[in-house]
Amino acid sequence: MSSLMELGEFGFIQRVAAMVGGTPEGVECGIGDDCAVIDVGGPEKLLIATDAALESRHFDLEWMTTFEAAQRTVAGALSDIAAMGGHPLALLCTAAIPRTTPSDAALNLMSGVAGTGTRYGAPLIGGDTVAAAEHIMLDVVVIGFAKRPWLRSGARPGDRLVLTGPVGEAQAALQIMLTNPDLLREPQYAPLRKRMVDPTPRLREAAVLAATDHVRAAIDVSDGLYQDASHVARASGVRLEIEVRCLPETVATRLAADYMRDKAPWWAAASGEEYELLLAVDRDSVPDANRHLKKAGLNPLTVIGDVVHGEGVALIRPDGSEMELERGGWDHFKGVQG
Amino acid sequence: MSSLMELGEFGFIQRVAAMVGGTPEGVECGIGDDCAVIDVGGPEKLLIATDAALESRHFDLEWMTTFEAAQRTVAGALSDIAAMGGHPLALLCTAAIPRTTPSDAALNLMSGVAGTGTRYGAPLIGGDTVAAAEHIMLDVVVIGFAKRPWLRSGARPGDRLVLTGPVGEAQAALQIMLTNPDLLREPQYAPLRKRMVDPTPRLREAAVLAATDHVRAAIDVSDGLYQDASHVARASGVRLEIEVRCLPETVATRLAADYMRDKAPWWAAASGEEYELLLAVDRDSVPDANRHLKKAGLNPLTVIGDVVHGEGVALIRPDGSEMELERGGWDHFKGVQG
Repeated sequence: MSSLMELGEFGFIQRVAAMVGGTPEGVECGIGDDCAVIDVGGPEKLLIATDAALESRHFDLEWMTTFEAAQRTVAGALSDIAAMGGHPLALLCTAAIPRTTPSDAALNLMSGVAGTGTRYGAPLIGGDTVAAAEHIMLDVVVIGFAKRPWLRSGARPGDRLVLTGPVGEAQAALQIMLTNPDLLREPQYAPLRKRMVDPTPRLREAAVLAATDHVRAAIDVSDGLYQDASHVARASGVRLEIEVRCLPETVATRLAADYMRDKAPWWAAASGEEYELLLAVDRDSVPDANRHLKKAGLNPLTVIGDVVHGEGVALIRPDGSEMELERGGWDHFKGVQG
Repeated sequence: MSSLMELGEFGFIQRVAAMVGGTPEGVECGIGDDCAVIDVGGPEKLLIATDAALESRHFDLEWMTTFEAAQRTVAGALSDIAAMGGHPLALLCTAAIPRTTPSDAALNLMSGVAGTGTRYGAPLIGGDTVAAAEHIMLDVVVIGFAKRPWLRSGARPGDRLVLTGPVGEAQAALQIMLTNPDLLREPQYAPLRKRMVDPTPRLREAAVLAATDHVRAAIDVSDGLYQDASHVARASGVRLEIEVRCLPETVATRLAADYMRDKAPWWAAASGEEYELLLAVDRDSVPDANRHLKKAGLNPLTVIGDVVHGEGVALIRPDGSEMELERGGWDHFKGVQG
């Protein structure tokens, strides 16, 4: 009898999606995007998503406080709202916590949940609390609204592929943490630690861009750029061509890659939990989108490639050859995917 | 440093509720009721709640299949919608499953989630999947609607206290299961096993009663009648007097209590996960409510007591004395509460 490890996360999700009959009336988008989209009869569509994080799998309390673990989990959940071009309303949180956890650590965890929610305009309004056997687990439910939600399926040949910010820092932080954790305290690596414990969901960028109407398709980089791009390619029925030399990296990521003697481009393409947005934008509208972002005091979009006819995702080197990804993104049941 | 076990579930929730500033605009009810209530601008209010279940804590796979474990968890989540007088729209589910779980067991689990959702008009529309360390955990998010949601805080002196059905079966099932599990296969105990693996969320009763406008306050019996009644008493600022002799029990529960030489009234008052509704109903409207239920082919309400001035909950014996509850309901962090 095969185990989940062999079936894999995406094989499993496919099988589960096939169990579900039709979506109910009013539900415009169910399994298969960053949020479910529901028409509730008001002027905006309701967005809802859940995002779970497990101690020792998604976060390690030797590397961060319970507050930071919660902060990063809530940011990741809110990123799903940003990926739909939405604005958040509130969150609910189920916390499974071992009974032997010190009260202070448990209350700091919930303070991280509630505080991060409030910080991004999404107060905690409910949830559930259960006693876990061994490890902390958080499941964060985010609710939000969007007038015209961005779907993964809207990319069309001719669109530009853009990112809201640099990718690779989360992987760089992880690599340094596994090798020489003390290094992360040095100032040049501070951005890496921030990306790990306090990543920014791109809600402000989403709000500015949603008002412009230039975005055709969107996803947040949570499993790794290559893998997340593959979801967009499949949902839209197009091919995404990404120029490796255009991938935005920070100085901290390059320093870390040098230190580790590893290849930064791979990090940029495979690093998950970055929470930048990957967008397909109307070809002629990038300058206008950037004007609006600038006016709001936000960083401009970085063009990283194009949407073309075909299927799949290509990472293209300056010489025109395709980069093969030895290690792709993350599969929860298989571990790192081949 | 104190641990969560000493702080207790309700102490913990109180501290967390205090962390949250105000509720956001449109949120009419946050932490402290069965569902959060949100005004989304449409004709009905949006209801949302989460309900988590952990293997070995909420269910034991030696006693039931993964399908049944999921079925019971989803029913419990939908019960929160019934407790608000609402009708469900859809559900999301986060499943944490160990990688070594056989694919069949994992897929049966999700089939239980999706199938039970569809059965009650709440298709699965999203969620998250993560690899658990050791035990399965399900976190079910239910979304629904209600025109005028029933709150815990609406009970007024003079109201009648009623139940939608018998209580005690869940405790009876648990006691038999711990003592002589084979007994549950005998036909006279079949209702106990059903209550354990396939409890009925009272959605049909809620729909009929919501149309009558007779219900003032509501909660579902999930932690134990006494404890759940205490939540209503506190939220409404009233005292609930329950006549022990009026508590509806089934033959199967009485047989089990005889077999165990235990006191069935205690089971009725402390048994959790029953998923019957405890309602405060306008005093003169019980007959009319029952007429509507009968017309819909549903069982009548059982009057179990009264709402009076004061505070707390009293379990009153036929001789007028108050029954002390040696063991109350369930506290996740303390275990059974004193």
